[in-house]
Amino acid sequence: MPVNVKKTVRKIDRAVRKGNWDAVRGITQSMHPSEIASLIQASSQKEKHLILEALDVEVASEVYFQLNPEERVSILKLMGETSLIAMAEEMESDDAADFLGELAEDVAKKVLEAMDPEEREEVTPLLKYPQDSAGGIMQTEVLKSPHDATSRETIELIRQIEEEDEDDVEDLHMVYVVNETGRLVGRVFPLKLSTAAPDSPLWTIMDPVEITVIPEMDQEEVARIFRKYDEVSLPVVDNAGVLLGRITADDILDVISEEAGEDIYKLGGITGEGLHPVHTSIYDNVRLRAPWIMLALAGELVLAIIIMQKFQTTLENFIVLAALLPLVMATGGNVGVQTNTITVRTIAAGDFFKSQIKDLLLGELKVGLVLGIISGILGSLIGLLLNTAEADVTRLFLVIFAGIVGATLTTSFLGVAGPLVLNRLKMDPAVSSGPFLVTFNDIFGSAFYLFLGAALL
Amino acid sequence: MPVNVKKTVRKIDRAVRKGNWDAVRGITQSMHPSEIASLIQASSQKEKHLILEALDVEVASEVYFQLNPEERVSILKLMGETSLIAMAEEMESDDAADFLGELAEDVAKKVLEAMDPEEREEVTPLLKYPQDSAGGIMQTEVLKSPHDATSRETIELIRQIEEEDEDDVEDLHMVYVVNETGRLVGRVFPLKLSTAAPDSPLWTIMDPVEITVIPEMDQEEVARIFRKYDEVSLPVVDNAGVLLGRITADDILDVISEEAGEDIYKLGGITGEGLHPVHTSIYDNVRLRAPWIMLALAGELVLAIIIMQKFQTTLENFIVLAALLPLVMATGGNVGVQTNTITVRTIAAGDFFKSQIKDLLLGELKVGLVLGIISGILGSLIGLLLNTAEADVTRLFLVIFAGIVGATLTTSFLGVAGPLVLNRLKMDPAVSSGPFLVTFNDIFGSAFYLFLGAALL
Repeated sequence: MPVNVKKTVRKIDRAVRKGNWDAVRGITQSMHPSEIASLIQASSQKEKHLILEALDVEVASEVYFQLNPEERVSILKLMGETSLIAMAEEMESDDAADFLGELAEDVAKKVLEAMDPEEREEVTPLLKYPQDSAGGIMQTEVLKSPHDATSRETIELIRQIEEEDEDDVEDLHMVYVVNETGRLVGRVFPLKLSTAAPDSPLWTIMDPVEITVIPEMDQEEVARIFRKYDEVSLPVVDNAGVLLGRITADDILDVISEEAGEDIYKLGGITGEGLHPVHTSIYDNVRLRAPWIMLALAGELVLAIIIMQKFQTTLENFIVLAALLPLVMATGGNVGVQTNTITVRTIAAGDFFKSQIKDLLLGELKVGLVLGIISGILGSLIGLLLNTAEADVTRLFLVIFAGIVGATLTTSFLGVAGPLVLNRLKMDPAVSSGPFLVTFNDIFGSAFYLFLGAALL
Repeated sequence: MPVNVKKTVRKIDRAVRKGNWDAVRGITQSMHPSEIASLIQASSQKEKHLILEALDVEVASEVYFQLNPEERVSILKLMGETSLIAMAEEMESDDAADFLGELAEDVAKKVLEAMDPEEREEVTPLLKYPQDSAGGIMQTEVLKSPHDATSRETIELIRQIEEEDEDDVEDLHMVYVVNETGRLVGRVFPLKLSTAAPDSPLWTIMDPVEITVIPEMDQEEVARIFRKYDEVSLPVVDNAGVLLGRITADDILDVISEEAGEDIYKLGGITGEGLHPVHTSIYDNVRLRAPWIMLALAGELVLAIIIMQKFQTTLENFIVLAALLPLVMATGGNVGVQTNTITVRTIAAGDFFKSQIKDLLLGELKVGLVLGIISGILGSLIGLLLNTAEADVTRLFLVIFAGIVGATLTTSFLGVAGPLVLNRLKMDPAVSSGPFLVTFNDIFGSAFYLFLGAALL
């Protein structure tokens, strides 16, 4: 990262305004694509696409994917078709497919038609897979060689490809071995290829392929497989076992980070992806955050109505119950959020069995009970000290204690059950189960506590 | 994964009780290490180490790292020293270092001393780095070759290593080129090695090494570099540039997942790592979760005292304020948790500049204001409808409205400032900033709201 971002931005800004594109290239020459992307993001809105277009197309197509997803779309709209075509041709197939997916439909169609036929052929099969499937993240550029080819012949094949496009070969970490029908039958590590006797056919030096993925598989599942089997690259095959492409671990880094970010956002009560704290507009920001705020608001309004309709007299007579209401709500909510977090994370990690659900539920209920008892005793004792009404001490203790324990037990149950039920319904366990839980606790936990107060005091 | 886990566990259970170790090996033979680990985790406590010891040592050492970290320690305690030594020798250096780190100190010392000298030499330098540093996750097994060696000589070198230990070579994705003093000067992709003319010296075919990491670097920072530069493997060098080891993307998959999990847990108010919902004891579970529950409890107790001391009369006269207290608290808390989540995530992604802090803060305050105004209007209107006391309508509206807007503005500010300050203090931005924020909001948000009530009504 250059020492002074602001200064560099100003320098580029001056060059752009003068139309001095050579200067832009010069300033960014020794920078990494992700650094250039940071600079573009720090530049003024009207100049972003001009900077990108000024770059060499190889650099531009790398910089593009380092830009914030929100930015990309607005930059694309301003770019000329010639630049778009050049960039799409320069990209690897998986990137080109994503790139086309981010263009307006009619523009994407034009760009695809204008592309070099060979490049078009590589990218077209990818367009049919969703972006978050194995097919959507795979590259079709694979090194494949027939099982009866010798090591020497395979090296010759690689050399030919290398001459055509040097960059491609370096990033291919594996030689895949296929039979006559294109079915994947084995793989050869490049190092093994170089040390093998030149005349040995591949089938004598290849390793079996133990793990493959199909293009329809969800990228989260693919990430799980990568983690489980510690692989650096995995082949993608169709149902007949024909090799379609490959996915490398560095693609999966982004998948894992993305999915974790989505879970974090959902647990924090933010729907929708791609919210950027600085680049997203206030309007979109509110739109993405309001649903859960409004949902909770509705819940709390229901609670307010219940309190006014049913428990007004109780509260007026025993104002200490009102003073401790926040405590009852917070304790139940906090224990529930913890349990919910643990359950969502456990499901995401995919490392527990159905047979363990009972253990999980019982364990969380026990922990919730212990935390509830400790909090309940402390809360009730302070409640007794603060009480100014003429309430029976034992009864007041009981109301507060039972209110707190009841809340923690309920939220412990919901914290396990909520995500598990969502998961069983094929919904995302993280999707607002936390926010729902807190609101539910606020209503029912408070109502139970005040009901006890009304009944016993 | 075998179709029926329970059935397989029962089969293994029978074999273990009969001491039929061949049968254990037979049952697990065609299974992947992570599947065997799942089986061990589903087995009874007393049998786990017996199953692990019954496996072939290569399999056992792979299975070991697929076990839940909590489980490992308890299993290790029951294992014989001979098995421990054999496993340590079998592992790659980074795994062996982690393994030794998980043993009791005296046992680790004994095992290290008893290890094969060559293996010991590989693992010893790693023991000095923290587990979560680049040094702690790197492997010392690297393929290095002098810069003046020819491609043919290098292949011959690899062939020799291959004959000694076939497995090692396959996993080495890069040939690192070093000068006379061991300094890293370039890298050669294996495929390039095989296609180069046999007599070309490495320095003529090598690529420059643009990115290296030092062993002291935090693993989170290493993960960020991997993501930024889309690399599959990176070399680790000391301050003088001498090659020490390498890190591959598949190691980073676990790092990213781990770190994201820690952030999720911290945001959910759970301190400490490695909490497993089923395997962690109730005692440890409570111990890891109680701190934040107790902290919040203390905060809510302070609030209860404030309410009883300062606002008792106000509440008794205007019970509607008590009925809406949960709403004020929840709205402020929810908006704050969203902002906090966004800020923590933004810091973790490392993709924004210091110069953007102002934009971030202003943006969040604007969003908080809009959400506060909407919630404030709705909340106040319902408050007016529910009110049973003889309060001035305008004033009551103002109290509720300003209470809600005040709370959302405060928590929006804290949601940005909290994580940023923690980060500046070199502390983890996620560390309970959410829980702190909610408690802070409960106390001061409520106090402000009730103060307005006392002053205006």
